[in-house]
Amino acid sequence: MIEHAHIHAFENIVNKENVYSDKAHLIAYSYDATRERYQPDAVLFPRDEKDVSNILRYCNEHKIAITPRGAGSGFTGGALPKNGGIVLAFEKHMNKILEIDTKNLVAVVQPGVINKDLQKAVEKIGLFYPPDPASEEYSTLGGNINENAGGMRAAKYGITKDYVMALRAVLPNGEIIRAGKKTIKDVAGYNTAGILIASEGTLAVTTEITLKLIPKPKFTKAYMGIFPNVEDAMNAVFKSLAKGANPVAMEFLDSLVVSALKRKLGIELPEDAGALLIGDVDGNVQEEVDLQLAILEQSFKENNASGFEVSNSEEERVKLWYARRNASPSITIYGSKKLNEDISVPRSKLPEALSFIYAVGKKYNFKIPCFGHAGDGNIHVNVMVDGNDQKQLELGHQAIKEIFQLVVDMGGTLSGEHGIGLSKAPFMEIAFNTAELELFRSIKKAFDPNNILNPGKMGL
Amino acid sequence: MIEHAHIHAFENIVNKENVYSDKAHLIAYSYDATRERYQPDAVLFPRDEKDVSNILRYCNEHKIAITPRGAGSGFTGGALPKNGGIVLAFEKHMNKILEIDTKNLVAVVQPGVINKDLQKAVEKIGLFYPPDPASEEYSTLGGNINENAGGMRAAKYGITKDYVMALRAVLPNGEIIRAGKKTIKDVAGYNTAGILIASEGTLAVTTEITLKLIPKPKFTKAYMGIFPNVEDAMNAVFKSLAKGANPVAMEFLDSLVVSALKRKLGIELPEDAGALLIGDVDGNVQEEVDLQLAILEQSFKENNASGFEVSNSEEERVKLWYARRNASPSITIYGSKKLNEDISVPRSKLPEALSFIYAVGKKYNFKIPCFGHAGDGNIHVNVMVDGNDQKQLELGHQAIKEIFQLVVDMGGTLSGEHGIGLSKAPFMEIAFNTAELELFRSIKKAFDPNNILNPGKMGL
Repeated sequence: MIEHAHIHAFENIVNKENVYSDKAHLIAYSYDATRERYQPDAVLFPRDEKDVSNILRYCNEHKIAITPRGAGSGFTGGALPKNGGIVLAFEKHMNKILEIDTKNLVAVVQPGVINKDLQKAVEKIGLFYPPDPASEEYSTLGGNINENAGGMRAAKYGITKDYVMALRAVLPNGEIIRAGKKTIKDVAGYNTAGILIASEGTLAVTTEITLKLIPKPKFTKAYMGIFPNVEDAMNAVFKSLAKGANPVAMEFLDSLVVSALKRKLGIELPEDAGALLIGDVDGNVQEEVDLQLAILEQSFKENNASGFEVSNSEEERVKLWYARRNASPSITIYGSKKLNEDISVPRSKLPEALSFIYAVGKKYNFKIPCFGHAGDGNIHVNVMVDGNDQKQLELGHQAIKEIFQLVVDMGGTLSGEHGIGLSKAPFMEIAFNTAELELFRSIKKAFDPNNILNPGKMGL
Repeated sequence: MIEHAHIHAFENIVNKENVYSDKAHLIAYSYDATRERYQPDAVLFPRDEKDVSNILRYCNEHKIAITPRGAGSGFTGGALPKNGGIVLAFEKHMNKILEIDTKNLVAVVQPGVINKDLQKAVEKIGLFYPPDPASEEYSTLGGNINENAGGMRAAKYGITKDYVMALRAVLPNGEIIRAGKKTIKDVAGYNTAGILIASEGTLAVTTEITLKLIPKPKFTKAYMGIFPNVEDAMNAVFKSLAKGANPVAMEFLDSLVVSALKRKLGIELPEDAGALLIGDVDGNVQEEVDLQLAILEQSFKENNASGFEVSNSEEERVKLWYARRNASPSITIYGSKKLNEDISVPRSKLPEALSFIYAVGKKYNFKIPCFGHAGDGNIHVNVMVDGNDQKQLELGHQAIKEIFQLVVDMGGTLSGEHGIGLSKAPFMEIAFNTAELELFRSIKKAFDPNNILNPGKMGL
């Protein structure tokens, strides 16, 4: 517990109403999507960048740990105050869209803005912010930047880091820095924004974000292909891309997921559906969309697709996406607890990676339904276990460790979207060599010599 | 001068034939496009990553400065061995395209590969590597990554950093690190690749580069618009983009450049041409190209364009681009020495920035022809002086300092493409606050505690 004098100091900085230190609120800020719990000593709601600066300067002097928090929707514990101290929350004050600049095609936002709110605001005027993590309805752009959030549209449009033009941030010593510019080109000084992205709140606290926008494509259609097995589906992916297809999304569901969708939600899908590919194509002219669909249809049929459906209205599009949207909730039929990992391999290695994952499932007698982003190689691997069976949980974690090792051996990564946080920290040594880990520690020290920012995360 | 024992040690590492220490070769490696000269003590040609590692480890132990060098085509002295020591050159051995992976749409290359060679190799199989610095015919991808090279196609396709998926690099202590992966998504560990890009060879030596490729658009047409003045041309840019145009390039030539093109090269352009916009539009279907051209034509005419030309063949396209391609050589009619800076401002500030630049020209009685990338706000500002007149040179530098100050005040950057190197190091304090400069020094120290890598660059 931190001393009462510190609470008093924080009240002086941000005003009494912006400091929570009562039990109920501390519990409310003690969890995230991992369901693990670590209670902070206080929750602070800075009103502006100056508050953030004053808080950090004070905490740095007194060596008080700070955990910046967006919506608390992370899957790896990035927003959990593992070492107590304070949680810095942005939803109360620092949650404004400051500017949508149509001449420069950029948006300037505070960290507490919800991803989808920005998407809606820019789409109203014909612009587009593509990154669409599954949490888009509630996760914040501050969190998205610090976790480098991905999403379904990454296949064509890339991920969060591809849209960050500039950041303002506060260093642990309270100093305010600007990283990047509202210009497409800027090569003066180190690319500090580049290292702040995906740093999981361990290097600096983001106070303002400048994001690139693009023109919103005028036409979008959804497609669905039904395949007898995973291999055919993956070959259809490769074939399509090699022929010049550039789908917005190319999502994959395996036979376990398909079966769960049929059993749990009664979705009508052919009996022989061993794998599905669902996605969108878009363009500024109808002919571009037609071309994309033609390439997909041909490539799918050449790889034994038994059906190729296309949406002809927004209603039909929602219907085609229904299976993909419900993949995650449906698979609970296989076990009460889902050990959900988001590995990513070079797209070409997906068939091999999936065969191995199913073999691991067979070895341990777990169902491991897989779905995700075939277009970019990022797959959600769900080891389904009985959450009340300690032995099963242990074996589940053992299975995941084997999967991680294989993924890394294939040139893949522990995490395509969720980050390392606390959950994946034990696996950092599988993924990085001693020199790389040592470099991470040196970078951390360069920004945060007293280790006050989100300590204990990323295995640092 | 370094001791002979060191030369001998280098010969042991890379073999005698890969160490140059004779006068003629040292002179050959003492310059770059700035025309300043600093002679190295030796030039080494590593055969592979292991050689690089051994060289760095040795130099780190003996505190010998190392300057990595691509083609030596940089405009700011990044490849100049200001403090002597060794130059590390990649053109002899580490110049191979290692892989063009059509399933994952990536290329893996060594640092010495020339940009255009990669472009040609991937275009042969329907793929596309968009970054096209003006030096593309000779600059290397290792140099491009370390300077974060831009180019004409940045307006639509972004710059070098948008295509770097992974790097292998050697730290000053000789340790080999991998940064990033051959996957679109990777959020495990710090984004080390992000900070290595644009680091001007001061943090690590790049030994292998994995680049994202995209499908090559099937149709490209060039366009040219002729405007009575700069303001109309810029308003046409804003109007086009606001209406959803997404041109590959949107290049701008001012009236001084237009006049030089007419006088020096006899290019036929209307007498009243106060500014030109030249560029390309592309698409996978003809209708997309037509749509883009229609938006441009309408926006141009609404802003007083007296002509709108479109290429209907590759020959016509080359002809339209001829004026832009010859902008740089033509302006020598205004002065024997060109003080060439590549400022970048938010696109919306271009008219204001240009007015100020012309006012500075008037004040000092210099011609300052400007041309460059209106689509992304990056303009080449050329202060033309008599190279033999010391007083003029001094005043020219004074004019540039005033321009830099204004650009920074407008939220712009000292450099859109060329980097800081030696030439712009004196201006770092205009662009960055004390905390930012201190952070740069801390980052440098985290990677290179003995300051052996490209010392004295970027004002660090």
